[in-house]
Amino acid sequence: MSKIVVVPGSFDPITNGHLDIIKRAAKVFTDVRVAVMNNSSKNSLFSVEERVALIEEVTAGIPNVRVESSSGLLIDYAKSIGASAIVRGLRAVSDFEYEMQITSMNRVLDESIETFFIMTNNQYSFLSSSIVKEVAKYGGEISVLVPKSVELALKKKYNQ
Amino acid sequence: MSKIVVVPGSFDPITNGHLDIIKRAAKVFTDVRVAVMNNSSKNSLFSVEERVALIEEVTAGIPNVRVESSSGLLIDYAKSIGASAIVRGLRAVSDFEYEMQITSMNRVLDESIETFFIMTNNQYSFLSSSIVKEVAKYGGEISVLVPKSVELALKKKYNQ
Amino acid sequence: MSKIVVVPGSFDPITNGHLDIIKRAAKVFTDVRVAVMNNSSKNSLFSVEERVALIEEVTAGIPNVRVESSSGLLIDYAKSIGASAIVRGLRAVSDFEYEMQITSMNRVLDESIETFFIMTNNQYSFLSSSIVKEVAKYGGEISVLVPKSVELALKKKYNQ
Amino acid sequence: MSKIVVVPGSFDPITNGHLDIIKRAAKVFTDVRVAVMNNSSKNSLFSVEERVALIEEVTAGIPNVRVESSSGLLIDYAKSIGASAIVRGLRAVSDFEYEMQITSMNRVLDESIETFFIMTNNQYSFLSSSIVKEVAKYGGEISVLVPKSVELALKKKYNQ
Amino acid sequence: MSKIVVVPGSFDPITNGHLDIIKRAAKVFTDVRVAVMNNSSKNSLFSVEERVALIEEVTAGIPNVRVESSSGLLIDYAKSIGASAIVRGLRAVSDFEYEMQITSMNRVLDESIETFFIMTNNQYSFLSSSIVKEVAKYGGEISVLVPKSVELALKKKYNQ
Amino acid sequence: MSKIVVVPGSFDPITNGHLDIIKRAAKVFTDVRVAVMNNSSKNSLFSVEERVALIEEVTAGIPNVRVESSSGLLIDYAKSIGASAIVRGLRAVSDFEYEMQITSMNRVLDESIETFFIMTNNQYSFLSSSIVKEVAKYGGEISVLVPKSVELALKKKYNQ
Repeated sequence: MSKIVVVPGSFDPITNGHLDIIKRAAKVFTDVRVAVMNNSSKNSLFSVEERVALIEEVTAGIPNVRVESSSGLLIDYAKSIGASAIVRGLRAVSDFEYEMQITSMNRVLDESIETFFIMTNNQYSFLSSSIVKEVAKYGGEISVLVPKSVELALKKKYNQ
Repeated sequence: MSKIVVVPGSFDPITNGHLDIIKRAAKVFTDVRVAVMNNSSKNSLFSVEERVALIEEVTAGIPNVRVESSSGLLIDYAKSIGASAIVRGLRAVSDFEYEMQITSMNRVLDESIETFFIMTNNQYSFLSSSIVKEVAKYGGEISVLVPKSVELALKKKYNQ
Repeated sequence: MSKIVVVPGSFDPITNGHLDIIKRAAKVFTDVRVAVMNNSSKNSLFSVEERVALIEEVTAGIPNVRVESSSGLLIDYAKSIGASAIVRGLRAVSDFEYEMQITSMNRVLDESIETFFIMTNNQYSFLSSSIVKEVAKYGGEISVLVPKSVELALKKKYNQ
Repeated sequence: MSKIVVVPGSFDPITNGHLDIIKRAAKVFTDVRVAVMNNSSKNSLFSVEERVALIEEVTAGIPNVRVESSSGLLIDYAKSIGASAIVRGLRAVSDFEYEMQITSMNRVLDESIETFFIMTNNQYSFLSSSIVKEVAKYGGEISVLVPKSVELALKKKYNQ
Repeated sequence: MSKIVVVPGSFDPITNGHLDIIKRAAKVFTDVRVAVMNNSSKNSLFSVEERVALIEEVTAGIPNVRVESSSGLLIDYAKSIGASAIVRGLRAVSDFEYEMQITSMNRVLDESIETFFIMTNNQYSFLSSSIVKEVAKYGGEISVLVPKSVELALKKKYNQ
Repeated sequence: MSKIVVVPGSFDPITNGHLDIIKRAAKVFTDVRVAVMNNSSKNSLFSVEERVALIEEVTAGIPNVRVESSSGLLIDYAKSIGASAIVRGLRAVSDFEYEMQITSMNRVLDESIETFFIMTNNQYSFLSSSIVKEVAKYGGEISVLVPKSVELALKKKYNQ
């Protein structure tokens, strides 16, 4: 039984909701790998390297968390690092159905890797990278939604 | 306690469902501002000016309704006109979650402006601007779904 | 246009989630009536009188809120006091569908009284009187979920 | 009462979930027409002709199934072939709401054509053409999700 | 391929929503059997005989509809009359999940009998026997929700 | 970081769906405790002792699974055995909301114990103890839904 779990996402950029899930995973599992999935079909605001750097910065204080990136299928990445499970955050009903679809497919691809869901803190249950970017674009206040370094990175992207 | 409420939307174009919500808001609140939000990232069929003109035409008989447009964050617009609340229509579960997300974000931005939801008339519970446009594009009958002037404007857009 | 709105519920007992909705309604509407609906088919822990007393105690500081009780149809009560609208809290999807059903029925009974929904603070989005009672029954800590006087009343009911 | 029913879809490409619905429809209805809807606004991986050919191949053994294509409104197509009903598969809640919207609109367009929903086999309840394409693109194993000929066609498209 | 379909329910009492589904089924299927399921674990307001009689009265004008009752498993009843399918109405998301559960179980019991769902008319999408009884009990107006004979039967039950 | 996790439930009786979740938990976690929660307010078919015995029988081959019972709050039980997490199965949307409510409450009671959700195998996604009992009561075939010993125990309860 491996002690490695993967927390995958696009993290464009990481929010306090993502960070909450990573911290919760790190409390229970020995070796947590945050995986920035590089899905070329989506336009991202931050490059994969920028996203990895931001997550590394905000998780620097958690010793059992490491940040990586991958551009193929999540399940192939999970296998390649010897993970026993994937950990995902759950917010709302729409999340739930999408996650069910992905999990179901991952089981078809490799039944041996389990997926665990963790409920996001209520406070972040309606938070997403997209809405943070939408607000940041118009100069709205996002300091309670993302870590300080992400707030600065967003302001820089939108030339504020 | 201000008497101004905002009914925001993209209204591309206004449907009988939108009109139902505006009329319901106007029965309870003293000063109703319909706000056409100009979200540049979405391709619209009608220009902001055309959308404002169509709403003005179909709400001409309701004295406490005024139509405006805005291109920034809704909450900034609401503050700038001194509104005490935002009023939104609710149709189905998918609406519900999206609206929860937006409301949650608006409260982070300004806790003092409340959001009220009104249930759309059952008859319009599955009606949207998108589906009206899809049907109009192929020459389908839309006279029971939109006001007469909107029907004509759609036919003109699709050269029928 | 009347300035009276009704916030109905069974409030068995009132929680911080209910209180949040009442306060939000009181910020926008001039005259808020909290109505304890006495539905004889449900077994309640607190009597109608006890429930009214607890709500009166915790809303004592809000001048435009008054507490009453009713044992018939909500819409008949709303008409009898000249209300222009009903205000309800919305938490999750299951709430949403139940509320849609009730609102739809109330419109059949009296189209002139509108229903507004307010989203509960995220913090209380999974809070209910039932779960509070379940936890209180086993001596669990409920001080962050209900006002102090409700906490004491629950402890007394369960002889702790 | 006509004996013709339509099973519409974009089928880009047909999956085992689609095939399950077609077979179920063919057990109850006399004359089943699978209609590949050519919605020009969506980018498809397979051309309409390729999609029709793949469906014809995998339904070759079911005598009362015929495959056709259409580029206008579904309801106009259904009328043109004298169908009495449309048959659609239902997987999850998000499907449900979208299908309700389409059905509601189709009833406005022509009340005489009924829509029936069939629940997909649990095994396929989270399967979609999109997820199959996503997995195939990265060389993932899809042999239990689509018929053999579709698997080969996908491999060819992605040059594997 | 049998031409018999079953429309099952507790029908305590039949509403305009139920009647809408029965009429829709009767337009497409040759032989429609409305089955009053006698589930002893639920307290019903009307006896099985009363429920059958009310349905017979309101469907008297539809020649291909017959009313029966059954007290065992629905699937056993369906088999005993040689039905090829079960037809159920769908209203909201909560309906949907419950129906999925029942359908899934029925397929385990007998894969050969298919289940079709029909969407209720929007107008009745939040209507149920329970809410009709609740309103009738307090003397509320139900004439647009149930057939005339059901309205009278409810008034008699509640001594009005 | 403790290695103990709790899989709680009423298990009245255990189904193949529950067993699937227990097996998945046992693949990732070192020490799995199945906890039969004795909620006195629900009428159960099997006594707590019978439920524990059935689970012990069907999990006999999994060395890191132990079966226990508890009659208080789940979170107090979890603390008393030094568990680091609770593991719950997720089937459908209605499950999801109920589970969110429970998890949210458990975090208020003790933030240090995490809750993980595992998606049930699609095959069991609409399976519940209640529906199994309903079918068993009428002599329906349940052999694919529950382990053999549970099937026999149900037949005995219903005198078949």
